[in-house]
Amino acid sequence: MDNRPIGVFDSGLGGLTTVRRLMQVLPNEDIIYLGDTGRVPYGSRSRDTIIRYAMQDAAFLRQFDVKALVIACGTVSTTSMEALRSGNGELPIYGVVDATVQAAAAATKNGKIGAIGTVATIKSSAYEKGLQRILPGVQYRGKACPLFVPLVENGRTEPGDIVIETVAAEYLEEFRQWGADTLILGCTHYPLLDRVIGNYMGSGVALIDAGAATAEYVAGELARMDRLSGKHAAPAYRYYVTDSTENFTALASLFLKTDHLGPVSQVSLESY
Amino acid sequence: MDNRPIGVFDSGLGGLTTVRRLMQVLPNEDIIYLGDTGRVPYGSRSRDTIIRYAMQDAAFLRQFDVKALVIACGTVSTTSMEALRSGNGELPIYGVVDATVQAAAAATKNGKIGAIGTVATIKSSAYEKGLQRILPGVQYRGKACPLFVPLVENGRTEPGDIVIETVAAEYLEEFRQWGADTLILGCTHYPLLDRVIGNYMGSGVALIDAGAATAEYVAGELARMDRLSGKHAAPAYRYYVTDSTENFTALASLFLKTDHLGPVSQVSLESY
Repeated sequence: MDNRPIGVFDSGLGGLTTVRRLMQVLPNEDIIYLGDTGRVPYGSRSRDTIIRYAMQDAAFLRQFDVKALVIACGTVSTTSMEALRSGNGELPIYGVVDATVQAAAAATKNGKIGAIGTVATIKSSAYEKGLQRILPGVQYRGKACPLFVPLVENGRTEPGDIVIETVAAEYLEEFRQWGADTLILGCTHYPLLDRVIGNYMGSGVALIDAGAATAEYVAGELARMDRLSGKHAAPAYRYYVTDSTENFTALASLFLKTDHLGPVSQVSLESY
Repeated sequence: MDNRPIGVFDSGLGGLTTVRRLMQVLPNEDIIYLGDTGRVPYGSRSRDTIIRYAMQDAAFLRQFDVKALVIACGTVSTTSMEALRSGNGELPIYGVVDATVQAAAAATKNGKIGAIGTVATIKSSAYEKGLQRILPGVQYRGKACPLFVPLVENGRTEPGDIVIETVAAEYLEEFRQWGADTLILGCTHYPLLDRVIGNYMGSGVALIDAGAATAEYVAGELARMDRLSGKHAAPAYRYYVTDSTENFTALASLFLKTDHLGPVSQVSLESY
């Protein structure tokens, strides 16, 4: 038993889709969430800058004596895991890649797996390397989709919207032509586009939600290590952001799909 | 005569459209440019965060003993001028609002002026207040266009592209229906959409480029104060960014429309 909280961070709000799933699969765990909303988005920045920000995010959460760190951010998970692990001793750190490639490998029948993500994620080749490790001979294609995040954040998620449908078709056409039967949604914003992406790709293509797969993976790992919480009281949720709390609170319910949010505070990461 | 450099900053790359015009109207001036590419965009962040970042940007440029500071960023110009001026003594600081409202007031015939900009800019009402000061009785409407910046940065600037045309029509429809004869492009990215916006609004509507108007205004002010450079050597241009220099160099030519860029260095603003 380990009653310490789980720390979760993302560049912004998208990681709340992972938090939502964590709350479902680990209903007794306290969770501390950090969203670096003052510096979001990370996905178009250089690798060195992303690593620097990720190290500050982790250092902030370590103050709370977390028992594990969940990187609910596709961009950080695919660029910064080595730096985060080598800089944080024995602390278990879970990114989205391991769980996601396992789910994708289990889903594919024809061995053709695609991945979409930010520019930094696709450039890292992290999904390709992860898939090759567990499914040698797998065929892989990756594609950066830099307009998906701003379109989601501006509410362009509905099928029938010519803007998101046109952009989605441009990004996804090559996967359809190639015949991928599995597509990794490698950024925590993309599950909000599941209907648009699903309609375009067709029902024969499995969409792998990286954040959801990760929440289930973390639940299994904590159980395996006997680090689940033994508390019987209602779990405590706390949220920290680097931009104003008002902007966060207004949008958070969209991702968490609940009106019960918990306390939100603004912090500065510059000294970490 | 004053041979010290002019400092220019923006949240990212858009301010280079202003630099380009400054180089044309002030061909003897040394220019030091700072783009906070590690934290761009500012326009969707809260006012307090924007002010904090703007104060760091200004403090960084003051190290170079600049003779004037040009805020080539619509968002900072409309949210942070008071803080910047009260925190920087006698240093002349020019934002985009004063020059832009003068140009708009000179252009309008029917007294109906619209402004488009980031969420923070439109929320500030800075253009409305500036117009009311110099053109009492002016009619004003403002509209935030949060998708324009990511669309420009992803190259969606060509007439005929259904994505940018659909988004532009949604944002601009109310100005056309209302009968505005002048539209302020209140963000330094928007001039790259001048053809799309011009086609939609029609040739009877004057588009006011905030950055270009500001460059001309600054040239006039420096001449008036006898602070123009007396150097005869070729001017020196230096660029500082907070994300990697590679990303900057690749995109800068799009905004500067020159292959001759000058030295670019990466810096951290966190200690300013």
